Amino acid sequence: MYNLLDKYKDINDIKNMGFKEKIQLAEEIRRFLIDKVSKTGGHLSSNLGVVELTMCLFDVFDFNKDKIVWDVGHQSYVYKILTGRKGGFDTLRQFGGMSGFPKTSESKYDFFQTGHSSTSVSAALGMARSRDIQNKNYNVIAVIGDGALTGGMALEALNDVGYRKTRLIIVLNDNQMSIAHNVGGVSRYLNKLRLDPKYNKLKQDVENALKKIPNIGPGMAKYLEKFKNGIKQMIVPGMFFEDIGLKYLGPIDGHNIKDLVEVFTMARKINGPVVIHVVTKKGKGYKFAEKNPGKFHGIGPFDCSNGEIAVSSTETYSKAFGNKLMEIAKKNCKLVAVTAAMRDGTGLKSFSNKFPDRFFDVGIAEQHAVTLCAGMARTGLKPVFAVYSTFLQRAYDQIIHDVCIQKLSVIFAVDRAGIVGADGETHQGIFDLSYLTQMPNMKVMCPKCTDEIGYMLDFALEQEGPVAIRYPRGGDNVCLKPIKEFKLGKWERIEGHGKIALIAEGKMIQYAILARRKLIKIGIDVIVINACFVKPIDEEMINTLVENNIDIVTIEDNIVRGGMGSYILEYINSLQNHIKVINLGFKDEFIPHGKPEILYKIYGLDAEGIKTSVLKIVSEGVNYGAK
Amino acid sequence: MYNLLDKYKDINDIKNMGFKEKIQLAEEIRRFLIDKVSKTGGHLSSNLGVVELTMCLFDVFDFNKDKIVWDVGHQSYVYKILTGRKGGFDTLRQFGGMSGFPKTSESKYDFFQTGHSSTSVSAALGMARSRDIQNKNYNVIAVIGDGALTGGMALEALNDVGYRKTRLIIVLNDNQMSIAHNVGGVSRYLNKLRLDPKYNKLKQDVENALKKIPNIGPGMAKYLEKFKNGIKQMIVPGMFFEDIGLKYLGPIDGHNIKDLVEVFTMARKINGPVVIHVVTKKGKGYKFAEKNPGKFHGIGPFDCSNGEIAVSSTETYSKAFGNKLMEIAKKNCKLVAVTAAMRDGTGLKSFSNKFPDRFFDVGIAEQHAVTLCAGMARTGLKPVFAVYSTFLQRAYDQIIHDVCIQKLSVIFAVDRAGIVGADGETHQGIFDLSYLTQMPNMKVMCPKCTDEIGYMLDFALEQEGPVAIRYPRGGDNVCLKPIKEFKLGKWERIEGHGKIALIAEGKMIQYAILARRKLIKIGIDVIVINACFVKPIDEEMINTLVENNIDIVTIEDNIVRGGMGSYILEYINSLQNHIKVINLGFKDEFIPHGKPEILYKIYGLDAEGIKTSVLKIVSEGVNYGAK
Repeated sequence: MYNLLDKYKDINDIKNMGFKEKIQLAEEIRRFLIDKVSKTGGHLSSNLGVVELTMCLFDVFDFNKDKIVWDVGHQSYVYKILTGRKGGFDTLRQFGGMSGFPKTSESKYDFFQTGHSSTSVSAALGMARSRDIQNKNYNVIAVIGDGALTGGMALEALNDVGYRKTRLIIVLNDNQMSIAHNVGGVSRYLNKLRLDPKYNKLKQDVENALKKIPNIGPGMAKYLEKFKNGIKQMIVPGMFFEDIGLKYLGPIDGHNIKDLVEVFTMARKINGPVVIHVVTKKGKGYKFAEKNPGKFHGIGPFDCSNGEIAVSSTETYSKAFGNKLMEIAKKNCKLVAVTAAMRDGTGLKSFSNKFPDRFFDVGIAEQHAVTLCAGMARTGLKPVFAVYSTFLQRAYDQIIHDVCIQKLSVIFAVDRAGIVGADGETHQGIFDLSYLTQMPNMKVMCPKCTDEIGYMLDFALEQEGPVAIRYPRGGDNVCLKPIKEFKLGKWERIEGHGKIALIAEGKMIQYAILARRKLIKIGIDVIVINACFVKPIDEEMINTLVENNIDIVTIEDNIVRGGMGSYILEYINSLQNHIKVINLGFKDEFIPHGKPEILYKIYGLDAEGIKTSVLKIVSEGVNYGAK
Repeated sequence: MYNLLDKYKDINDIKNMGFKEKIQLAEEIRRFLIDKVSKTGGHLSSNLGVVELTMCLFDVFDFNKDKIVWDVGHQSYVYKILTGRKGGFDTLRQFGGMSGFPKTSESKYDFFQTGHSSTSVSAALGMARSRDIQNKNYNVIAVIGDGALTGGMALEALNDVGYRKTRLIIVLNDNQMSIAHNVGGVSRYLNKLRLDPKYNKLKQDVENALKKIPNIGPGMAKYLEKFKNGIKQMIVPGMFFEDIGLKYLGPIDGHNIKDLVEVFTMARKINGPVVIHVVTKKGKGYKFAEKNPGKFHGIGPFDCSNGEIAVSSTETYSKAFGNKLMEIAKKNCKLVAVTAAMRDGTGLKSFSNKFPDRFFDVGIAEQHAVTLCAGMARTGLKPVFAVYSTFLQRAYDQIIHDVCIQKLSVIFAVDRAGIVGADGETHQGIFDLSYLTQMPNMKVMCPKCTDEIGYMLDFALEQEGPVAIRYPRGGDNVCLKPIKEFKLGKWERIEGHGKIALIAEGKMIQYAILARRKLIKIGIDVIVINACFVKPIDEEMINTLVENNIDIVTIEDNIVRGGMGSYILEYINSLQNHIKVINLGFKDEFIPHGKPEILYKIYGLDAEGIKTSVLKIVSEGVNYGAK
């Protein structure tokens, strides 16, 4: 089935292949990727785009000593295949299986882990400088997409690279899009550079013209070189990079094996930093992905033959958010939506089409997005920044410094909070309750069901100062009745009685309710409380619980350290009476990839885990207050 | 004394001044600044550099409707003077007095607060877009230094500005340095653009040459325009900005009033984003500051007549750190130091001179700095990133994503942790214990005295995985005996006996000891414990305290929410027995500028405050365990 691929043993086998074999290998890799990813789900478009690019890197470099950093890392499948991990694709992104990102624990060839965007140049530069200081001899390569190049830290790194002239190879994989469409001046500039026959024609014409320029006087001789450089800027527009001190090679057709080998060979010899501008096509070789690369960016299992996925009709938090925002925007002309290359994922596609003038996708630039919102809020708009929890981490300082200090009314729609599943440890949104509750002036809300998110938005829009609404990937498992009118810092007592209260946030409420059902079966009732506000907490309700000697189990889709349970505990500790408190959440470690249900179970956060914690309190007897 | 300045009443008075009066006003403002700052201390060099720039902004714009964002904001003194706050300079940066940064609560003309670098373009763009959406009509101006331009978020913002072509004026205040010397490709590029007679000569020559080019055939006609543009790139090197979609004007002499007025007037008419490249001289007009702008960047009181400051001979944490790092570097060739434009402030000046090949100042680029260190650590170096606590916030995600997940051995030397004083709320380093203890694999240490920092570095270098050492601005008030050999997670019982333990970190230990002295005078002894590790905490010692029913007061130079005390409380809560715990630290609000001693007193963290907390426990009687 895979004649060449099945025989591929050593990472350097490609060096002994002829041109035709390479073409065949590329075809087999594509077929393999489509087949495997259609079964497990995963990142497809980006990997189909870098088949030749990756192969040619192996042809020219030797990764037994050379180091490579894959920016973001979801385009490293071909690299995984060629470094002996073909067998891992059956368990791709599944609990205990192969990661969808580079993992040093998985292979010695994964030299540096990635997941978030725009880190590769910094890491690679660190390695290159390290090599020079230690007088070692290896090549360092960063492969970075054009989308990732809009991330500030990549630009910080390029600035530094150009300064010290360290030998480093940066492969700019220009596929004209990041997760969403690319935006920004840099992107537009790259557009100008892309393979375009006009450039070649122009280059020829200008060179011919230069030959015809007569002797224009002795005073000009010394300027002629500079004069040519000026013209070079027109015909070799990579001067953007050259201006900041990097050698620019390109643009190169990223699917032309001969050209790639040639340019990589050339780059290897350059004694300084070099950018190789490679133009690739996302989804290359699979017509459905070529046509709709966004759909096949990160995808679940699909039908190979027609590219169709089983459409889930479930309402998701993202959809509910997007729909509600559309509804509000119709009435409230001050509402604007901002995202950082997460338009579709956060449910803003329809909004962007309906209100293009009030929709701002700033590219992979979370820091800028937050402060942009601050400026908008300061001048009377109502900005909503829709962002994944894990990426909002990038803007930790901006939230404090530009929003919270000035108490500006920015709404943070924090999607993919808690466990996200298959993307794994770099993407789990398990820190936000800890870092957002630290920030003075911040309010933090968590909807317990998809229906509740809209009412939370209504509430948030009425508040002075920032509000974060955090909600998980996906939708609901249990059908709950939404709160329609929120009061600041007031929780909801959902159901139950007894001497133990389960205080849960968001999605965890559904598990708390399931836990109660299990407990009732064995004759124990508990109170289930919806901590719809994680900041401010409902001190009045806590006071009542404490006064009535009701013990508490807190449950959050977040780390325990500094999270909601910790916040509640800090408050209870400040009271005169004490009760027993058990804080459930993730312990102090990074959480691997795997289905959320599996991970909740392992970390004692599912119904059974909650039940166990309740039984622990029961078995220890009544609480301190009753002593 | 100040003929014109004393008469300056309305913000637009300058519009009615003649050229000579403006020159005189500039002179008076400079004299005023030097006089006032010499008494209170403050930022001098940057403000002397923008006297004409600021005046001419008032000449052309009307800040009753136009909005300005001062990047970083420490260069806003002239703006403060011209917006009616001349009187505030007597209390500059003092508790209850005028802030050294723009503050919306201080004046309606301070429209947006700043403090950290590189935020201005984002905020200003938000305002400009807001203006357009609401069909309003005002100008928005961001004034950003060349140093701040190396910060990633400024580049993210420029990218976005160029994309949508929003009308926005960016004044690039190019003074050829940030706090420290500027670094990086962008900086070198700006160097090329600076006022240089060669450019003018070249421009003339090339234009003459172009006139002499004969007719080179009909096929070239359509390329002639592009051809000229190519040449324009050589003689108008602002193509870097033009490439990403911004109009470039400059370079302009930032001390030439006529030129400034002309260029601002031109910029006001441009219907799109424009960068005005203004070249200024830091410290302009005060010879000591011109000669040594770094010294007068942020300075304490000094002698006007000779520019001399009373040199404090006190050993500071920064100095102790720098000296120790030098010592280690002599023996350990793998040690490298990284900083983000904080070389002198973090005590690395001597190191950078002695070991230039192992010293990396990456500019104002904390994100890149952290991931650069990760790459270095991955390849066998021992990187130490010296950074102020408040700026490390910028790299929250990189610490988690690039260092902690991979458990890389990066040492974070977190200077200016806790209250920093005069710089105020944007600069207080009061979040790091909360956010660093959240991060899996991170170790956090706090020296109790300057002598201890060196031994901590020795310890940290032996560790696998990241270690953060956090320490305050300044030096010690109480002389303490350092721990010379640390054991991971083991605290030091310093002195005292009794039923109450004070667990303090770093500088707070000195206050705990002073509190004990006060308590002993009234017959109460307490145990003073040095929580030299805030992560991991000393569970064994806590167990012993709990078993012996010893109540605890935790004291930290950090917010209470999620901080050291909270961490200790989470652990105690997981035990069977309970004791009383009082967590002292900063409550959930931003802490204003003022001397640290004043702020500690207000927030109950000084010796008297700690004593009060102890007496509270005493008055409430024995603890729960003894019930």
